[in-house]
Amino acid sequence: MAAPGQNLAVVVHRAGDLRLENRPIPEPGPDEVLLRMHSVGICGSDVHYWQHGRIGDFVVKDPMVLGHEASGTVVKVGSGVTHLKPGDRVAIEPGVPREMDEFCRTGRYNLSPTIFFCATPPDNGNLCRYYKHSASYCYKLPDNVTFEEGALIEPLSVGIHACKRAGVTLGSKVFVSGSGPIGLVNVLVAKMMGAAAVVITDLSASRLQKAKEVGADFTIQVKNETPQEVASKVESLLGCMPEITVECTGVQACIQAGIYATRSGGTLVLVGLGPEMVTVPIVNAAVREVDIRGIFRYCNTWPVAIALLASKRVNVKPLVTHRFPLEKALEAFETTKRGEGVKVMLKCDPTDHNP
Amino acid sequence: MAAPGQNLAVVVHRAGDLRLENRPIPEPGPDEVLLRMHSVGICGSDVHYWQHGRIGDFVVKDPMVLGHEASGTVVKVGSGVTHLKPGDRVAIEPGVPREMDEFCRTGRYNLSPTIFFCATPPDNGNLCRYYKHSASYCYKLPDNVTFEEGALIEPLSVGIHACKRAGVTLGSKVFVSGSGPIGLVNVLVAKMMGAAAVVITDLSASRLQKAKEVGADFTIQVKNETPQEVASKVESLLGCMPEITVECTGVQACIQAGIYATRSGGTLVLVGLGPEMVTVPIVNAAVREVDIRGIFRYCNTWPVAIALLASKRVNVKPLVTHRFPLEKALEAFETTKRGEGVKVMLKCDPTDHNP
Amino acid sequence: MAAPGQNLAVVVHRAGDLRLENRPIPEPGPDEVLLRMHSVGICGSDVHYWQHGRIGDFVVKDPMVLGHEASGTVVKVGSGVTHLKPGDRVAIEPGVPREMDEFCRTGRYNLSPTIFFCATPPDNGNLCRYYKHSASYCYKLPDNVTFEEGALIEPLSVGIHACKRAGVTLGSKVFVSGSGPIGLVNVLVAKMMGAAAVVITDLSASRLQKAKEVGADFTIQVKNETPQEVASKVESLLGCMPEITVECTGVQACIQAGIYATRSGGTLVLVGLGPEMVTVPIVNAAVREVDIRGIFRYCNTWPVAIALLASKRVNVKPLVTHRFPLEKALEAFETTKRGEGVKVMLKCDPTDHNP
Amino acid sequence: MAAPGQNLAVVVHRAGDLRLENRPIPEPGPDEVLLRMHSVGICGSDVHYWQHGRIGDFVVKDPMVLGHEASGTVVKVGSGVTHLKPGDRVAIEPGVPREMDEFCRTGRYNLSPTIFFCATPPDNGNLCRYYKHSASYCYKLPDNVTFEEGALIEPLSVGIHACKRAGVTLGSKVFVSGSGPIGLVNVLVAKMMGAAAVVITDLSASRLQKAKEVGADFTIQVKNETPQEVASKVESLLGCMPEITVECTGVQACIQAGIYATRSGGTLVLVGLGPEMVTVPIVNAAVREVDIRGIFRYCNTWPVAIALLASKRVNVKPLVTHRFPLEKALEAFETTKRGEGVKVMLKCDPTDHNP
Repeated sequence: MAAPGQNLAVVVHRAGDLRLENRPIPEPGPDEVLLRMHSVGICGSDVHYWQHGRIGDFVVKDPMVLGHEASGTVVKVGSGVTHLKPGDRVAIEPGVPREMDEFCRTGRYNLSPTIFFCATPPDNGNLCRYYKHSASYCYKLPDNVTFEEGALIEPLSVGIHACKRAGVTLGSKVFVSGSGPIGLVNVLVAKMMGAAAVVITDLSASRLQKAKEVGADFTIQVKNETPQEVASKVESLLGCMPEITVECTGVQACIQAGIYATRSGGTLVLVGLGPEMVTVPIVNAAVREVDIRGIFRYCNTWPVAIALLASKRVNVKPLVTHRFPLEKALEAFETTKRGEGVKVMLKCDPTDHNP
Repeated sequence: MAAPGQNLAVVVHRAGDLRLENRPIPEPGPDEVLLRMHSVGICGSDVHYWQHGRIGDFVVKDPMVLGHEASGTVVKVGSGVTHLKPGDRVAIEPGVPREMDEFCRTGRYNLSPTIFFCATPPDNGNLCRYYKHSASYCYKLPDNVTFEEGALIEPLSVGIHACKRAGVTLGSKVFVSGSGPIGLVNVLVAKMMGAAAVVITDLSASRLQKAKEVGADFTIQVKNETPQEVASKVESLLGCMPEITVECTGVQACIQAGIYATRSGGTLVLVGLGPEMVTVPIVNAAVREVDIRGIFRYCNTWPVAIALLASKRVNVKPLVTHRFPLEKALEAFETTKRGEGVKVMLKCDPTDHNP
Repeated sequence: MAAPGQNLAVVVHRAGDLRLENRPIPEPGPDEVLLRMHSVGICGSDVHYWQHGRIGDFVVKDPMVLGHEASGTVVKVGSGVTHLKPGDRVAIEPGVPREMDEFCRTGRYNLSPTIFFCATPPDNGNLCRYYKHSASYCYKLPDNVTFEEGALIEPLSVGIHACKRAGVTLGSKVFVSGSGPIGLVNVLVAKMMGAAAVVITDLSASRLQKAKEVGADFTIQVKNETPQEVASKVESLLGCMPEITVECTGVQACIQAGIYATRSGGTLVLVGLGPEMVTVPIVNAAVREVDIRGIFRYCNTWPVAIALLASKRVNVKPLVTHRFPLEKALEAFETTKRGEGVKVMLKCDPTDHNP
Repeated sequence: MAAPGQNLAVVVHRAGDLRLENRPIPEPGPDEVLLRMHSVGICGSDVHYWQHGRIGDFVVKDPMVLGHEASGTVVKVGSGVTHLKPGDRVAIEPGVPREMDEFCRTGRYNLSPTIFFCATPPDNGNLCRYYKHSASYCYKLPDNVTFEEGALIEPLSVGIHACKRAGVTLGSKVFVSGSGPIGLVNVLVAKMMGAAAVVITDLSASRLQKAKEVGADFTIQVKNETPQEVASKVESLLGCMPEITVECTGVQACIQAGIYATRSGGTLVLVGLGPEMVTVPIVNAAVREVDIRGIFRYCNTWPVAIALLASKRVNVKPLVTHRFPLEKALEAFETTKRGEGVKVMLKCDPTDHNP
């Protein structure tokens, strides 16, 4: 165990004010475990809270620890915990329902308005040395799954939830709009679910190259095409209109392209978030019965992801392009802000910087 | 049988040019039946073709018989027809797929791009004395179902398809936006499917009164409320946010209200069609996983509707507020255009003007 | 509040040994409420535990309070309870999950193997004067819903869960096998969900008469027909094979009839439980894609049932045919055992014997 | 084109009477194509008609050409055919609906009772030199898909339909019972759909070895275990009970094992067909909400299979273990009857015996 005061944490105080500071090591409650954190990825939302101090209605009012893509080792268990013991390596699901409301009871706990969620104000995240969490939402990692794979389950979960909501199935033709980290995990997941072909768009040739590496069949480097022209290129490359479009940019023109591109009777899933109000060709979608569905985080994805990682059927390791020790977190955040690479991983355990 | 030339028909020639004229009595093909038409309702789309000569990409280029809410009596059957015989009273499903494409094979034949559809250019409708149709899409009416009920299956089908796509089920709270004929059938259908409470909005107090009569539990006469204010009133009346909103106006502000009003995890169905491009709070819908689904006509609804009408579990008769003999079709169209009443019915059989 | 020792309870000690005895009044925990019980229905399972001391693997080893179809009034709330207060009238959902396992997280908490369930050994039921329960599983009754309606939500829930698993929807033709209390609630629920026609079978003419009263369209008094003959009668009365069969007897011949009767592509739901092993025409079901689905209790039904009862769209009151004060519980159990009437209700509040 | 009388065909006349004989070359109708057959696999049902002259109610009354796993080349097209031309290489879907009934309209055309189906009495199959078929049910093969892959789409379709009905999805744990050709395609398809782990059983070690080669994660060589013991081994190997069991033997004990093995809330799909009546632990399935679903052939699988084969994501080639020229069909049938290898392929084009 660490001495008191040795819980280094990455804390946002307000827009533009990010600090490395020591926090008390927390004491786990009866149904909680204390974790020594190992690997924590930086998410776009972490950078956004640092830069803007808010995302929509979620405002940083008090200093908040960032981080929610995380894995670590159990060091202490609460009195009521039976499925974990000190030494267990775990991946952390950052959302923990606080009450068994109608959303929880019907299997959609991600929609519960009172859910605890790491690094969403006012709830602290886990970009620190020691962190306590609900034991039920810590999932034991098999020996053949690394800590970084464990941390990557979080972004992977966004892809799993999106592709499940999209109804990707055997033989699906899929259009993924935007080749950032979330676009890439959607390519990975869509292929795992049996998609026959995936086409992906982006402004950046290097991002599209990464998409090719993780399994995209076709890429389109978008320049100044109209939404209809993008849709036409998608159809041309696939040989038919895709049944499914996964929109990962939030940009109005991309949402429009997503509607035009999707086959009648298909589904457009909105993953990327942009401006609150957007102008869309709603009649085009409606009369062709193209469903428009958003996602909010994910639910019931950790067991699925662990089973897949253990089966070695999916390789998420190429997503990690940068690593920094926790002490260099500010440098890591600057790197992420500049949009370099895909996923920046912080190594929180000073004794073990392995993946 | 009628003498040649005695097939009076309501024909639109171009925008603003509606005529009553005689057409040849058609000869049914091997898989068709010839019908003596009895009751045909006037739909908003009929009026729209008359007023504007087009709906979206569908343009009246050649004279076209109007009418697609219809019932009649079989007078002649093609050589391959086995399930119908002269004298059978039938309701007519106006859409008949022309080829067994991917949409037909997966049970969504309404989306087939090559479908025949009565009174959608260039396909003729059935607002006339004699009309031939695919026998497979003529459904025998039980003795206890009237011709007018048979004709009303068409608008009722829009409600059935919308409420099925919406997922209305036992205990649903439903918000219907707009109290025209299509809003009313959605109230009827939602209640039949087990909705616990339906709230409906409109500008007109008299239309809301009609909604009350067909089963709406609550009504809201909208004046100049913002979309958020409408949503708030809906929640207040229902005691909770509705899981389902059925939007029947196509008006931008109403679509916005539909998004704000719908409970997280619920569904907004777009039935009304307005301008091609609309501005909507897409992030609000996406992060609450409110699905946005359109409908295009309907499929697989006639057997359902006939079973319900035969069971006397639904009363659609109050929807018919005006009747005109076919000879007075132009007067009937003027009445419909003025927005009087709910459904105007044309009586095509000069020997029988009964419902 | 009652004096100590004044908590009269109906307790089964072992097979054949049913006693009325005083128990301590329990103290609610932080998330619990203490209830003064009002109306508790007797279920077939209560009688079965009394007669046989077990149901399958569930064995009465220690004395157990019976009763799980119940409603009452809040008299005390735990420190963490916010949505209820003393004086609130509530219906009690008897199953309360003990841990947030995979079944709970995916919305099927009824399948959780560690669930608490009233009057399933070793968990005590609520056929007594005072009972404490998880506050989250007590649902406030609107003023226009009686205590007995509240108690009847439990059997009604079996029908709701069965009909939802069966996929009853608008226009469904439904065959309900067995006209006991559970058959009757399935008739009620199927009709509420839009079934166009329901046919029900039983050996007893009086039970079939009751089914007619609650909404069955057709009845078949079964004598010594083969399963195929029963199926044939069902088809003949409905005019087609039913898409859905709800089997409520558990008798082998009835399950066989259910398979033969159900239309290709339809669903047979098994509600009644009989012998562990049964012989069935599995190939007949398989090659016609007739799904066979069981149900285990129910989940997510109380809010639905309350909304429906409040809307006055369903009338469950005719189900109650007998009432006894709690003091006469043994007589009430004898009556139930004899199969008289439909539902026997025990009145637990000595100051209020109203429905 | 071939000279008249040069249409060699494999014809079953009655049980035990299989002949190679010449038949006239058929003339395609307006919506048909004439095909020069290339590769046709022998199915267990072909052998069964030869050995027993019937399968259930389907009886060979007149001589019938066998064969329904087939691919060939278009040599002539009917007047109404637009999507195919002579020289196109196609895979043949053997089932062609004859009328647009309720099953066809709802996307389940395989259940249509009047469907045409190759080599199901009285409909002829395509194990011959020249065969005509509905053009809509001939699917053009991409250049990178071989004729044998095209022929294997038929057994692959059984796996696709079974796994879709089973609800296999990302992370599924799957138990496949029986490692014959159909068990193997279910392994292949389940893995393609994202299954995390598949365990398969069989009596034969060599068949299990083949299952390993096509992707099974675990194998169990069954000897004289009870159904419960098999279920226990399945759970032990997977580390949990499978959500899905695909039963491919039809043997009573295997169906029983399938019920015991499947996780609560999961699905048992019955693919193998055995005796009409079987004794099963129906209560065990019912109270754990384990759905039992059969399959009848398949629908909407050819486009999916072709997209997957074209993407090179699935390798079905190892399934072909024997090849015979059409002239040696009787020898090929003897080989199949002896249960040697996996799939025996007949080469119908004397000028091209390539895969």
